[in-house]
Amino acid sequence: MPGDVRRRMRSLKLRDVKFDDTFWAPRIETNRRATLPIEEKQLRDTGRLEALKLNWKPGMPNRPHIFWDSDTYKWVEAVAYDIERAPGSVSVEALEAVADDVVRMQQPDGYLNSHYTVVEPDKRWTNLRDCHELYCAGHFFEAAVAHHEATGNAKLLDVARRFADHIATQFGREEGKRRGYPGHEEIELALAKLARATGDRKHLDLAKYFVDERGAEPHYYDTESQERGDKPRPRHRYDEIQAHLPVREQRTIEGHAVRACYLFAGATDVAAETGDAGLFEAVKKVWENATTRRMYVTGGVGSTRHGERFTADYDLPNLTAYAETCAAIALAFWAKRMLEIEGEARYADVMERALYNGIASGVSLDGERFFYVNPLESAGDHHRQEWFGCACCPPNIARLYASLGHYAYSVGDGEAYVHLYAQGSASFMAGEMKDTRVSLDVKTAYPWKEKIAIKVSPEDAVEFALALRLPGWCRKPAVKLNGKPVSVRKAEKGYLTLSRKWKKGDKVDLTLPMPVERVEAHPGVRADAGRVALRRGPVVYCLEEVDNGSGLNGIRLPRGSKLKATFDPDLLGGVTVITGSAKRRDESKWKADDLYSATPLGKPARLKPAKIKAVPYCTWDNRAPGEMLVWIPEC
Amino acid sequence: MPGDVRRRMRSLKLRDVKFDDTFWAPRIETNRRATLPIEEKQLRDTGRLEALKLNWKPGMPNRPHIFWDSDTYKWVEAVAYDIERAPGSVSVEALEAVADDVVRMQQPDGYLNSHYTVVEPDKRWTNLRDCHELYCAGHFFEAAVAHHEATGNAKLLDVARRFADHIATQFGREEGKRRGYPGHEEIELALAKLARATGDRKHLDLAKYFVDERGAEPHYYDTESQERGDKPRPRHRYDEIQAHLPVREQRTIEGHAVRACYLFAGATDVAAETGDAGLFEAVKKVWENATTRRMYVTGGVGSTRHGERFTADYDLPNLTAYAETCAAIALAFWAKRMLEIEGEARYADVMERALYNGIASGVSLDGERFFYVNPLESAGDHHRQEWFGCACCPPNIARLYASLGHYAYSVGDGEAYVHLYAQGSASFMAGEMKDTRVSLDVKTAYPWKEKIAIKVSPEDAVEFALALRLPGWCRKPAVKLNGKPVSVRKAEKGYLTLSRKWKKGDKVDLTLPMPVERVEAHPGVRADAGRVALRRGPVVYCLEEVDNGSGLNGIRLPRGSKLKATFDPDLLGGVTVITGSAKRRDESKWKADDLYSATPLGKPARLKPAKIKAVPYCTWDNRAPGEMLVWIPEC
Repeated sequence: MPGDVRRRMRSLKLRDVKFDDTFWAPRIETNRRATLPIEEKQLRDTGRLEALKLNWKPGMPNRPHIFWDSDTYKWVEAVAYDIERAPGSVSVEALEAVADDVVRMQQPDGYLNSHYTVVEPDKRWTNLRDCHELYCAGHFFEAAVAHHEATGNAKLLDVARRFADHIATQFGREEGKRRGYPGHEEIELALAKLARATGDRKHLDLAKYFVDERGAEPHYYDTESQERGDKPRPRHRYDEIQAHLPVREQRTIEGHAVRACYLFAGATDVAAETGDAGLFEAVKKVWENATTRRMYVTGGVGSTRHGERFTADYDLPNLTAYAETCAAIALAFWAKRMLEIEGEARYADVMERALYNGIASGVSLDGERFFYVNPLESAGDHHRQEWFGCACCPPNIARLYASLGHYAYSVGDGEAYVHLYAQGSASFMAGEMKDTRVSLDVKTAYPWKEKIAIKVSPEDAVEFALALRLPGWCRKPAVKLNGKPVSVRKAEKGYLTLSRKWKKGDKVDLTLPMPVERVEAHPGVRADAGRVALRRGPVVYCLEEVDNGSGLNGIRLPRGSKLKATFDPDLLGGVTVITGSAKRRDESKWKADDLYSATPLGKPARLKPAKIKAVPYCTWDNRAPGEMLVWIPEC
Repeated sequence: MPGDVRRRMRSLKLRDVKFDDTFWAPRIETNRRATLPIEEKQLRDTGRLEALKLNWKPGMPNRPHIFWDSDTYKWVEAVAYDIERAPGSVSVEALEAVADDVVRMQQPDGYLNSHYTVVEPDKRWTNLRDCHELYCAGHFFEAAVAHHEATGNAKLLDVARRFADHIATQFGREEGKRRGYPGHEEIELALAKLARATGDRKHLDLAKYFVDERGAEPHYYDTESQERGDKPRPRHRYDEIQAHLPVREQRTIEGHAVRACYLFAGATDVAAETGDAGLFEAVKKVWENATTRRMYVTGGVGSTRHGERFTADYDLPNLTAYAETCAAIALAFWAKRMLEIEGEARYADVMERALYNGIASGVSLDGERFFYVNPLESAGDHHRQEWFGCACCPPNIARLYASLGHYAYSVGDGEAYVHLYAQGSASFMAGEMKDTRVSLDVKTAYPWKEKIAIKVSPEDAVEFALALRLPGWCRKPAVKLNGKPVSVRKAEKGYLTLSRKWKKGDKVDLTLPMPVERVEAHPGVRADAGRVALRRGPVVYCLEEVDNGSGLNGIRLPRGSKLKATFDPDLLGGVTVITGSAKRRDESKWKADDLYSATPLGKPARLKPAKIKAVPYCTWDNRAPGEMLVWIPEC
């Protein structure tokens, strides 16, 4: 019914989902084995862990930075998920040591922030616009909830509760409180999560307050600047931090991409938890704008490094794309929340697009190097780094990988959903009393092969609906139940729902044909005019110099060219590559100093035959460094 | 001989050059009739003229801005040229009133600047990096020289002399002087011009000092910031103002495009006037970098609005091109100076490219509206404006148009050069004693037609060499002398030199065939990959929405497509248009909300037949507003 906004499904526990595929399982294992220990070392070496001990004094090196704590908290959250999903994490001891430091760091009034405790103790809450105080708080809440879920130990959750209570005494519309809200959003979704973990409505109310107050008049950032004795930022620039309008009046996605997606993920939570249909209408409009006007084919978002931000509809330059790893992650967070309310596969399509492409590109195959920026074209000068001064992306991808189980399956009221297909298993309780455990065993070589076999194994026969996502990229999906075809026409909102009394030995077979496809962009996307991207299944491809030589923009893909997909088990951890015939501008006679050269009419420049080989975009820059290109000129 | 750096030729007097063509003559007349009076009104309405009266007091509106004087001086210079080139300027009276105000504005010590006299009298010369004081001085020197040349009245030249003397007491390497130099260059070329007008070597020495001191250690901008109590700008950002290295050590063109081209134009002057071969080597290297790696096909320079600057080799985005009108003008200034030293047509090629394209685009055909930014593609939202808060471009184009005669012809030692072909005439003195007047009468419909007839009319028969530029864009030029073919193989450095005793009735005929050409960009220019620009003669073309409908990037120009050039006397003041067959992506079935859409292999997206019509780039945005595109996707 219209206006019925609520969360219709929830994720499985991480311990109830196993990945045993060749795409995600190695990445999740590498995350545990390489990434998390490396991040711990970086947090330690850069002084971030020491900062929690509050030992810093003026004049000492490694002055705690305003956003340092958030990096640590994301790592805490990641390790907690990793512990929860499977035994054997090597980071358990370090996690508990950090947790104990955080417990000791909390101030008597509940406040928690290393920078504002030792560096600028008199400046607490004086610059919400720029200083990331509430952002750090949000990341702490997420870490605390994950730690509690993983360990059953409430020591961090208690700190979080007290800190949230403290924040609630500072901010709100009541007399004597500041009417502030974060310049870098994140706390909204974190408070909704905390409220679910604690059952304390106060935390949700605070999230709702932060969403509702944003952009209200008189404008808090004007007031706050004046109180600091600073000149307020010009009004037209508040869109940089989504504070140009009240959230419910926003229709387009604006400003810093990570902040924008965190904000709207949090606003989605608030709408779902409070049944706020008006807020959800605004969220949906902004979602439509973000995903049908301002998203790269890789699921990356944020078109420019200037302000790391969204720009304008269809402005999606490739070489200068920002597409921060964190922004694609934030978009996936938001997509998951939309999916949980709406139950529509198109949200999962965006989530899957980001996961296999613009997120997975964010970390090297060995788990040791990271992209902050994920362009769709490179002149050969863009490479993953070991760490960043602003180190938001590495622990963000770590927490996502460690919690990937949350994204693959959900259960609702009498329903179980499969959103992502990956070899492995899932287990959940079904039946009217939720007392019957059901296992799903998935055999597939997805995303490389089109067949997916799901064995459904309830302890006892049990009635429930199994909703299988039919991906938006797939033109002719086919489904069989115990060997008999099921019409996919029955699918609603992109899910084919099989409702029956399931019994041991039941089997569902999906076939999701994956021809190589040429993707064109909307006519409004100037950067992609005259070009196509190659895609197969959910995977977007790119050309790399190491396979195709330099000068990738000299390649012309004839409009009728045949392209072939082949699995190469020895390449990049095992990937399907796309090969075929193309043409190539003959540049052998081009003079180096000719910036422009004319060809008389009727004598077009020479094109010579060429072969091309494309690899999954997410695996680029794992071999010899060089150029990269997603959108290939056609001829 | 190597190392022999000197100016080999000089421009004719403006009064000795007449334009009677259909391209420049109407623009020059419109400049007089519309642009100069409009600019006078703007200068008055915005308070710039009032500022010269030094009446401003704190609290009053229209506080004189640090660069206001420069706008006025450029207008003064423009009016002076316009007076010199032909009688009948409507701005004479206003010019003299402004000149008298400037005379009164000069301070007893010679100082001249409205802002620093009435707004911040205690801050003179304290922020050369940002505050445009020396830039305003430079523009005044140019105006003063032009005024003297035009009127014979030395009142402004005397002010300039005293002001330059004052500046020389402030800056230099001698004890007690500041070792400063301008953050916005311009004064270097202006001082060289002043030195030529006054014959005073001191002014040239000051220009040389400014060029030589730039980027030297200890770095003046560090010192200056510290003296102001400011934090110095980070070292790596000094490239924004070409102060990252000493000028002679620079090899690439960096930073703010207008400043960079003014600086190197000035450095070229200094090298020529002082015979400094070492400096000229550096200037040439930077020139090569600028024009073979960092210049648009229109002669525009400056790839990004962020810092209005040069970026990297081959980074030439079209939609977001900055290509400020002033920067193309500054490039033409520099080109002219290089040409005068080297006598090579390739410098005139750049000058001509900028004039017919990236400069002429800067003003509307009615002379009333101006582009500051000249992109090579527009989504339909870029239009000429009546004026700008930072109003450098309108008076810059006015002074260029009024002085265009300086660019068309030169005389050297026994030589006369024709650089630009336009119907009209030129007159100069020839002969060993320079006592014989020679007229050149040029009949041509250039740039629309390929024939040029030059009648040479000396008062008495006289020996000299007539050097005719064979444009770099022309593949098969043909020349006849008195009806007899002359081999163009004899051309050197792009000029065909006809040395003889010329007598009345001698006639030279050039044919410069102008097929429509498809221009490709260097493989390194990613923005133009898979695209071609159309050019005919020196004129670069573009597609406009008004002729071709919207969605210009949906057009595909087949590689063998036939294109036809036709002169349309009723269009845009009379222009040659290019028409022909192309294809067009069929977007009728594209769903508005599909950001990406896949086409199965072997079923490429539909292209439908289409006609295209291209108009000269410089005339775009003179009709119904809409999209514009220079680089057209091929198929």
